[in-house]
Amino acid sequence: MCKVLTKADIKYFRKLLGDDNIKTDQAHLIAYSYDATKKRFEPECVLFPRDEKDVQNILRYCNDKHIIIVPRGSGSGFTGGALPSSGGVLISFEKHMNKLLEIDQNNMLAIVQPGLINMQLQKAVEEVGLFYPPDPASQEYCTIGGNVAENAGGMRAAKYGITKDYVMAVEAVLPSGQLIRAGKKTIKDVAGYNITGVLVGSEGTLAVITKIVLKLIPKPKMQKTYMGVFPDVTKAMNAVFKSLSNGASPVAMEFLDSLVIHALRQKGHKSILDEKAGAVLIGDVDGNNIAQLEDQLAILKSSFELNGSIDFVVAKDDKQAQSLWQARRDASPSVTMYGQLKLNEDISVPRSCLPQALDGIYKIGDKYGFKVPCFGHSGDGNIHVNLMVPDKDDETQLSNGHKAIEEIFQLVVDMEGSLSGEHGIGLSKAPYMHIAFKDHEMDLFRAVKKAFDPNNILNPDKMGL
Amino acid sequence: MCKVLTKADIKYFRKLLGDDNIKTDQAHLIAYSYDATKKRFEPECVLFPRDEKDVQNILRYCNDKHIIIVPRGSGSGFTGGALPSSGGVLISFEKHMNKLLEIDQNNMLAIVQPGLINMQLQKAVEEVGLFYPPDPASQEYCTIGGNVAENAGGMRAAKYGITKDYVMAVEAVLPSGQLIRAGKKTIKDVAGYNITGVLVGSEGTLAVITKIVLKLIPKPKMQKTYMGVFPDVTKAMNAVFKSLSNGASPVAMEFLDSLVIHALRQKGHKSILDEKAGAVLIGDVDGNNIAQLEDQLAILKSSFELNGSIDFVVAKDDKQAQSLWQARRDASPSVTMYGQLKLNEDISVPRSCLPQALDGIYKIGDKYGFKVPCFGHSGDGNIHVNLMVPDKDDETQLSNGHKAIEEIFQLVVDMEGSLSGEHGIGLSKAPYMHIAFKDHEMDLFRAVKKAFDPNNILNPDKMGL
Repeated sequence: MCKVLTKADIKYFRKLLGDDNIKTDQAHLIAYSYDATKKRFEPECVLFPRDEKDVQNILRYCNDKHIIIVPRGSGSGFTGGALPSSGGVLISFEKHMNKLLEIDQNNMLAIVQPGLINMQLQKAVEEVGLFYPPDPASQEYCTIGGNVAENAGGMRAAKYGITKDYVMAVEAVLPSGQLIRAGKKTIKDVAGYNITGVLVGSEGTLAVITKIVLKLIPKPKMQKTYMGVFPDVTKAMNAVFKSLSNGASPVAMEFLDSLVIHALRQKGHKSILDEKAGAVLIGDVDGNNIAQLEDQLAILKSSFELNGSIDFVVAKDDKQAQSLWQARRDASPSVTMYGQLKLNEDISVPRSCLPQALDGIYKIGDKYGFKVPCFGHSGDGNIHVNLMVPDKDDETQLSNGHKAIEEIFQLVVDMEGSLSGEHGIGLSKAPYMHIAFKDHEMDLFRAVKKAFDPNNILNPDKMGL
Repeated sequence: MCKVLTKADIKYFRKLLGDDNIKTDQAHLIAYSYDATKKRFEPECVLFPRDEKDVQNILRYCNDKHIIIVPRGSGSGFTGGALPSSGGVLISFEKHMNKLLEIDQNNMLAIVQPGLINMQLQKAVEEVGLFYPPDPASQEYCTIGGNVAENAGGMRAAKYGITKDYVMAVEAVLPSGQLIRAGKKTIKDVAGYNITGVLVGSEGTLAVITKIVLKLIPKPKMQKTYMGVFPDVTKAMNAVFKSLSNGASPVAMEFLDSLVIHALRQKGHKSILDEKAGAVLIGDVDGNNIAQLEDQLAILKSSFELNGSIDFVVAKDDKQAQSLWQARRDASPSVTMYGQLKLNEDISVPRSCLPQALDGIYKIGDKYGFKVPCFGHSGDGNIHVNLMVPDKDDETQLSNGHKAIEEIFQLVVDMEGSLSGEHGIGLSKAPYMHIAFKDHEMDLFRAVKKAFDPNNILNPDKMGL
């Protein structure tokens, strides 16, 4: 890590933002050095811009001086996208630019600043009968800006899609300091290149987004929670794609495998999860009338049965629904019983490949002697693969763990799947980009990066660029 | 127009593709010189590549020699996107690369070549219970490649979105001749920049798309057609956004104003369209059970009544539904009674701005003495504005027509709307891009263009770049 900031730089920022909005003390630098990976990189200073103008001034200055800038949401990312891995300036929106600016009920859209917490948006729009579907697991603390940067997904993607499906327009500051408006508050807009589309998921490497216009939809009036119980993973995975191609459109279709079920039973979920269950599918159906829900549940039940389910439960009340969802939510912490270190990857495959994908993943785990509990968003083909390393200090195990991950990525890419369903590439997956992309495809990414950020000041090192 | 092709170039293409797949005779050059604009530009030769490899070889050769290439669907565009305005080579996919390669029912997607006709895709997927919603008015002859290039819309966008919402992945050839794969056959994919997203709507200026993976959805089991009748346009436009924000989710909500209604009554639609009607809204609701449809119709009816409707009709059978839709389809040809030349623009505004937008458009028409019959996709805020010039040879009228169009665009942009909802920019709207975009935003478009096409060989002159 090269030290790039001078005293004069710090002085400039201090004058620009005021003492309260620049932090260079050790406590702050440590506090902003981490995310949900195990990696740590300290920035050289942390800036809290008050508005777009501050962002413009910061970027213009840094671009002139070739100073690195890393934008950060709330550090909930799993791939290091917000880590200042080469030092420089970290920009945080959590102090000032964190507002829900407007809910436009007439046009069913919300205008927000990047630092707004996802859950705050959800609650606010639901109070007026509207709905913002993207619900990453970190929704209680992750920011919309981070969601947009990483194109975050969540459980409801099977029916409602992901962040990119809701971003209508953005305002963003280019490294030059110029503010651009991309997209419109309209359903249709075909004037100029789709800059909004390329900014979503660009991991803060192209521009700093300062305002976001999000599409909202009417909140469905009712929902019901279901669980299908299967003797094994293959039957469950067949049931996933066959029920969906039979016309089921569940809000979510979440999957737990037998290792996860075993772990959850140890953690107090015995009454919900039967020991005979080799795999379960948990989800919601929603709609505006009971007939619609019953239609959906009937398709699910019959498709599950045709594919060998041993039980189909519809939660009889909110309490039972909450118990089912609590089991799903406890999946991630529960699997720590299988190893000291969790190598957590969020691969995504075409749904019909789920049975072979999971079969292949378990075989790779067996080959290297790792347990690989899997769970996740099977309804959209996105599985959280948890490769559990028994001893985190054993070099051979660690090396084998990374070999296994590489083999899993190759398996997924061979199925026309993706290295990452919703976590992004960041630092953690950058070494694997060569599996998914040819050299000239990476060169195209680099050319796009250069079109926005010719001096490579914005979040360098990320995405394998 | 500068002549760029040499005999050696023609010889190369002839050897590459065979005599049958290169045309340089006058009949072909004329046949490929037009689209739905009144503009005509002849290419210097027309090539019919047989596969991706042909496209790669053509592009590599042209890039080396700096020869212009214009990709063309079926020439149904309204803004000249497929016109070889600076000569060069025209590539057509209609002869060979026009196949529906696969319908993957398990993953609910279709894989198609760019020359496939939209309606052929729709029919084929509906036969297996699936549904491809984007339905431009030219669906019987326009190609999917053209739809992707222009990010085509249609009537169903109010509920189902537009082309970009269905393009999961593409294969495309860069000007260098290199084939790229962008996107995946998965719902979630956050590895690398969203190249698919920026290619959709790029009007053939960045790469030549050779294969497209399209998302399909289950075909709704039933639908019903409705019409709301209003005394004036303002009441109808208020009903549009208020019914939608009340939770209505119609497949379409199409609008005809009083000039269009008058014209249609002259053309034989008197039994459907009452002379008292100052505006009508026509559309479908769909779903999988009757309760769902009745819910939707009830929301529409009550919202319409609250906003001053004078009648609400639900088609009692297919025949009546067809009559309503036939009136809508005849709208465009009917308005020719108001002038010799139709300046047809497809502006798009946030739905709540529809009442003021139409009021402003009529005032601009009055100011210059033009009738401006309007109709279109009010459910998504996209209105077809038809500025009717009485005498197409009167220079003053023509000049005033263009002034009026410029004022209409300014009005729309002031409302945060778009110059184009679904027709694209092409040549026709290029002179108006300065109204919608600042210089540095245009510079960003140019930088993106250069990242893909450094020699500017792909469809130059378009989009005001």
